[in-house]
Amino acid sequence: MTKNKIRPGSYLFPTPTVLIGANVNGKANFNAIGWVSGLEFGPPLISISSNQQHHNNVGIKENQTFSVNTPSVDMVEITDYCGIQSGKKADKSEIFDVFYGELETAPMIKEAPLNLECRVIHMVDTSEIAKAKMGHDIFIGEVVQAYADEKYLTNGIPDMEKIKPLVLSQSRSKSRYYEIGKEIGVAWSIGANYKK
Amino acid sequence: MTKNKIRPGSYLFPTPTVLIGANVNGKANFNAIGWVSGLEFGPPLISISSNQQHHNNVGIKENQTFSVNTPSVDMVEITDYCGIQSGKKADKSEIFDVFYGELETAPMIKEAPLNLECRVIHMVDTSEIAKAKMGHDIFIGEVVQAYADEKYLTNGIPDMEKIKPLVLSQSRSKSRYYEIGKEIGVAWSIGANYKK
Repeated sequence: MTKNKIRPGSYLFPTPTVLIGANVNGKANFNAIGWVSGLEFGPPLISISSNQQHHNNVGIKENQTFSVNTPSVDMVEITDYCGIQSGKKADKSEIFDVFYGELETAPMIKEAPLNLECRVIHMVDTSEIAKAKMGHDIFIGEVVQAYADEKYLTNGIPDMEKIKPLVLSQSRSKSRYYEIGKEIGVAWSIGANYKK
Repeated sequence: MTKNKIRPGSYLFPTPTVLIGANVNGKANFNAIGWVSGLEFGPPLISISSNQQHHNNVGIKENQTFSVNTPSVDMVEITDYCGIQSGKKADKSEIFDVFYGELETAPMIKEAPLNLECRVIHMVDTSEIAKAKMGHDIFIGEVVQAYADEKYLTNGIPDMEKIKPLVLSQSRSKSRYYEIGKEIGVAWSIGANYKK
């Protein structure tokens, strides 16, 4: 095997696909992104990286709240639509059945199997830390409440096989959505007997 | 459908599975994590969130470098082993064929289809921003070089279907590894004709 140097990129395969909800000028808006990560268990923290051109960013900065909604594979078209159509041009406030929680300004999607209601606790601007030309806002949020219908839970805990999330392969050529495939093994277990 | 409030958590399904490489006290060490995210295209930035108890964090802080290695499904056992065995107790410097790039202190895994060589440009400590009891270090790295064998590329670009990455369902009950499943559609395309 020969290791070739390839053009540097933030290659990650796959990424989850989530719909970020924000109230912008008092109206619910949703955008699809793949740059999202867990950060901490207690308190539960999550980060999103959202292009500063996005309409959502205005509302997140104003209210210091956002939501992370996990769509299922059968929501692929409406999810992709949210990624294609900017909220600057299209009103996306009525394409979902929207609900609000205790933060009151983080719109969530009833149709999505899983919703995280987040309060911004920290922000990082990539144009400041790395002189990025088209900057991204990294919003770190505390998950103050989570919501899911009973049918997506097993013993009260979200179950990925029931959620059937949409996953994304991001690429400079074509980006594609995929389903989750077959289970390979139990983590923090299957490697216990590994011997080199 | 009834939305139930569930215990708040940083639920994300799935997460990628990557092996983070660092030199700790002059020796290569590798740990498996799922909390990783792209952040920016130009320059390419990536974040990892790594428990402050991890051996890796010592080396990343010392050298201000780390690597992100994407294992394929056939590396599931050795990947899981890296997540189970702390570098404080086990010497993981020789379980892979290790190579170094221009940063000289970010060990990379030859067997892994894709390697990102990163220089730390920013750090966030969750015990500072959120009073986390068992804190995580969020390392934001610039990808200074990327490496992949020709067989994982299509037109010079990493191709997920060739890489066959390992994905993780993290859960408070059992965490599990999965394969990528079937393609559903082209992103920023399949939703173009969505009508509410």
